[in-house]
Amino acid sequence: MPAGTTILDAVRKANLPLKAACGGEGACGTCVVKILEGTYETRPSAALPEHLIKQGYALACVTEVKDNLSVDLPHFEEFYIRTVASFRLEDVKTESISGSCRLNPVVRGVELEVPLPSLEDNYSDLRRVKRELRKHGEVDEVECEYSTLKKLAGSIRKNNGAISTVIFAPGREWTIIDVTPGGESKGVYGVACDIGTTTVALNLVNLETGDILETAIGLNRQIKCGEDIISRINYAGKPGRLEELHDLIVATINNLIEMATQDAGISPADIFYASVSGNTTMIHLLLGLDPRHIREEPYVPTVNRVPFVPGRDIGLKINHEARVHCAPAVGSYVGGDITAGLLATPILRDSEKVSMFIDAGTNGELVIGNKDWQMTCACSAGPAFEGGGVRCGMPATEGAIETVKISDEGKVEYEVIDGKMPRGICGSGLIDLLAELLRHGYIDRQGKFKKVNTPERYVQNEHGTGFLIEEGKNCYWGKALVITEKDIATLIRTKAAVFSACSLLLKNVGLAFDEIDALYIAGGFGQHLNIENAIRIGLLPDLERTRFHYLGNSSLFGAYLILLSDNNRKIVGALSEKITYVELNTDPAYMNEYTGALFLPHTDMTLFPSADA
Amino acid sequence: MPAGTTILDAVRKANLPLKAACGGEGACGTCVVKILEGTYETRPSAALPEHLIKQGYALACVTEVKDNLSVDLPHFEEFYIRTVASFRLEDVKTESISGSCRLNPVVRGVELEVPLPSLEDNYSDLRRVKRELRKHGEVDEVECEYSTLKKLAGSIRKNNGAISTVIFAPGREWTIIDVTPGGESKGVYGVACDIGTTTVALNLVNLETGDILETAIGLNRQIKCGEDIISRINYAGKPGRLEELHDLIVATINNLIEMATQDAGISPADIFYASVSGNTTMIHLLLGLDPRHIREEPYVPTVNRVPFVPGRDIGLKINHEARVHCAPAVGSYVGGDITAGLLATPILRDSEKVSMFIDAGTNGELVIGNKDWQMTCACSAGPAFEGGGVRCGMPATEGAIETVKISDEGKVEYEVIDGKMPRGICGSGLIDLLAELLRHGYIDRQGKFKKVNTPERYVQNEHGTGFLIEEGKNCYWGKALVITEKDIATLIRTKAAVFSACSLLLKNVGLAFDEIDALYIAGGFGQHLNIENAIRIGLLPDLERTRFHYLGNSSLFGAYLILLSDNNRKIVGALSEKITYVELNTDPAYMNEYTGALFLPHTDMTLFPSADA
Repeated sequence: MPAGTTILDAVRKANLPLKAACGGEGACGTCVVKILEGTYETRPSAALPEHLIKQGYALACVTEVKDNLSVDLPHFEEFYIRTVASFRLEDVKTESISGSCRLNPVVRGVELEVPLPSLEDNYSDLRRVKRELRKHGEVDEVECEYSTLKKLAGSIRKNNGAISTVIFAPGREWTIIDVTPGGESKGVYGVACDIGTTTVALNLVNLETGDILETAIGLNRQIKCGEDIISRINYAGKPGRLEELHDLIVATINNLIEMATQDAGISPADIFYASVSGNTTMIHLLLGLDPRHIREEPYVPTVNRVPFVPGRDIGLKINHEARVHCAPAVGSYVGGDITAGLLATPILRDSEKVSMFIDAGTNGELVIGNKDWQMTCACSAGPAFEGGGVRCGMPATEGAIETVKISDEGKVEYEVIDGKMPRGICGSGLIDLLAELLRHGYIDRQGKFKKVNTPERYVQNEHGTGFLIEEGKNCYWGKALVITEKDIATLIRTKAAVFSACSLLLKNVGLAFDEIDALYIAGGFGQHLNIENAIRIGLLPDLERTRFHYLGNSSLFGAYLILLSDNNRKIVGALSEKITYVELNTDPAYMNEYTGALFLPHTDMTLFPSADA
Repeated sequence: MPAGTTILDAVRKANLPLKAACGGEGACGTCVVKILEGTYETRPSAALPEHLIKQGYALACVTEVKDNLSVDLPHFEEFYIRTVASFRLEDVKTESISGSCRLNPVVRGVELEVPLPSLEDNYSDLRRVKRELRKHGEVDEVECEYSTLKKLAGSIRKNNGAISTVIFAPGREWTIIDVTPGGESKGVYGVACDIGTTTVALNLVNLETGDILETAIGLNRQIKCGEDIISRINYAGKPGRLEELHDLIVATINNLIEMATQDAGISPADIFYASVSGNTTMIHLLLGLDPRHIREEPYVPTVNRVPFVPGRDIGLKINHEARVHCAPAVGSYVGGDITAGLLATPILRDSEKVSMFIDAGTNGELVIGNKDWQMTCACSAGPAFEGGGVRCGMPATEGAIETVKISDEGKVEYEVIDGKMPRGICGSGLIDLLAELLRHGYIDRQGKFKKVNTPERYVQNEHGTGFLIEEGKNCYWGKALVITEKDIATLIRTKAAVFSACSLLLKNVGLAFDEIDALYIAGGFGQHLNIENAIRIGLLPDLERTRFHYLGNSSLFGAYLILLSDNNRKIVGALSEKITYVELNTDPAYMNEYTGALFLPHTDMTLFPSADA
């Protein structure tokens, strides 16, 4: 960037997301960044106190680059967080999933010894390769991709007939999608990818062992085009915008792949399969399909069961012949993240018990049922539990407060994911905070602040009264972490949307809450969801605590299972066509349920007997 | 081109073939062109007489462009010759072919009425389309290309659910490869293309009627890299040369497609299928596959049965999703031109009779057999009968002499294809000429000139003594058409290669010539092959004349039949694996047979009883 460019412009040119609510006027203070190194010139602004500027903070919109400059973007925009994983296939427990955990990927490497041709065995190279390949499985037909055909003759003759092939075998018709001379293969890898409206998470997997080598998590770069599905669909309605959203999600994934492969020391060209899960809108945007009809009655997407798509056609920077599988959707508002998520639960294993599955993402989805029947519905929860829409919120990554306790003396105790200075609070921390505020009487059942013994926790800022979680001097961003009544109202609306959907879905199948044998909870809350606190605020029903199972990102785990075994792809395919979808939007009872749930924990306290204890 | 460029350089930059045997020194006279219009500057040369320069001829290598200039390239390099055809499917006679002539292409248009979605019928767009499509044939699975998926939602809603789809249906698994709103389809077209070593011929076909709209013929642009397959394979051996040969054949085909579609008033984007036939080397070069192993023992190609390849991957400028089918080869020297060619004969219809099929192209191939068994072999004939390797030779296109008679008074009478001034002589004319020279005693049985009553027909030029066919003033190129002893020797070698292969193949199956019930002859001789003369020179065996059937370009016709009906694709597929291949190169008897055939008609005159008559 030339000297004189503002940091905000530089960030935008690099296509990195950075909010500037006031439009870059130096007025709102949302675009604060932390200068790490380099020369710059900034000017004072009412939105950023002098002492923070002295500590190296700056508003991106009024700060010009003078020379090489290195800056840290604010927590909510924090870009790629990578966690090195050493997850092994043998860690998957058969009884905890609905599918198969036997390694049987649709794309796999097969080593062959192809006899060199002779006057007696003078079949063409392709025919001799097919002949050998047929010895390696049950196969009706073998085809060969054109790009592979071009490498065939040379590969066979290089190492005396030994070759490594990669085959795509979705059934009894196989396609050879790569060939290398024997001993020169760099391996066969795949990625499982959960595309959330707010965050995108990806596993890099060795398809020859099933082990997860790396896990990378990042913000969905589309976030700058709207925080929820409806705003993304609206955004896509203007000319060129669909392409922009498509490019942003592809760039997000490519960046995660690049980081993961770099760290694992492999080439993206050795990734031959991507198993993707996401809600229906995210999948439409990934494919560049107009999502408009998803939000127009009768809410019909272009596609629920997406055919295999070549990764190159979407723009993924992986092997030229890599296939992309998208977990099948049920409908416009229950997507492949849910069918994949169900695979990551044992719900479909058992015909006796009735279980419930709750995925409280930006869009909330619920499933009730067992092996024989399933019913599902969706609700618009909002991104609060993933760190969106709440000023002190952030995803469950480095610097996030994940647990909160308030002592009787009003002291706030918390744990930060990386143990360092807090940058914000993730979903599990927000649930704890809300529960603790309620328990200690800082807020009433409507979420309004009450007068208390320790009024020093209340602070005033430009957003009104707030509860002080941590002072600015102890925080990474130098700004106090504060939760306001507005933030609390957002959290209450989110939990109310989820709970009322649970409640209505149960009524639809004629069951009471205590008839649910097991409850599986998924979402981006963080590692440690405190079930007790989630019940206390009325997000989850007041059931025996042993019935609850917190799964974390079940969509990603489901995508991983589909990557591992093609049987799982077939299971979710059948599931997506069999499951019954209940439309809440058109049900007038939903608004009643929702309104009743806008209290902590609920207007109907008989639903929450523990709350009185 | 800037002023001052020589015509030769301009021609080369335009990637048009123009021979310059001396390398552009103004010495050989091979690069003569005819100026049609414009300003230029040339210099005198011993190779081009002054009076021809005055008549507007010029040597391309010593002539500079001064301003806009329009030139006609010499006959052998004549580029694209288009014949408007009005060939209708109903013209195909069932009894004359071995396959089906019922219209049943693998790619076809299907019109659908897809109900718009409703709250009751809220399946995804793709699923509703699949549901309708299943009503149009026996189908197990329907898939949809990604590019089509992107257009689906908009197409369905544009005209109230009416859509035109294009499907690729090689079996019971269909793929939707295009969609347009109902009433907006421009039709579904295909091309059949015969890739010869010397010439490339193409039919543009309406796949909804089966009719041939246009036929375009052009020189294979690879001709500048060698005249036969062995020299092409050698050429491909140097770095970058394989790509060059690939690009040249693709450019040849694209140019033919462009001309044919322009004249038919359709868009190349509406071509969804290309059925290609060609010898194994041509197909390897089309696909960019290294042909090296074709000429190295044990003579094994990369592929005989080529899978369907997307046209875009090869570089064909047709629809993005168009499929290319290559007729299957038997081996390195009996290619898809022969399997396709057999389809265009009735040979495979009958179990009783034994027929022979002779394709006398640059590479000669023979088949003997019937419905139950077939045996095939190949010989290297050379391009003489297609107009190559003989100075006055040319392909059977505009300006070619196609029949020749010499009167007892030594007058040469001929017919020119377009009835205008002759430019050269095509295969059928050369056969006539040779027979007539023999009949009138101008040449002896070895092809040497004899003393005769009309010595004025003999002329001397830089190539020695020649027989004058036509004086320069009556010829299009202003140069006399002359045949020399060297040219005659070339023709004799060509006919000897073909005849001796026939003879040896018959010996292999233990049959005599007169046990052949029917003889089908294919090749680029021209429209009117004179069987009598072909027997007189010993190209064809001396059988009852009614047993001979001249087919013309059977490879192109076979490719057309495969385009018309997918049953035909299956027939040639099975044929290619069943037919027995006989290797002549490794058979010492072949050289004996060949040497015996180097006489007119043959050393063994008992084989040609009519010759004595």
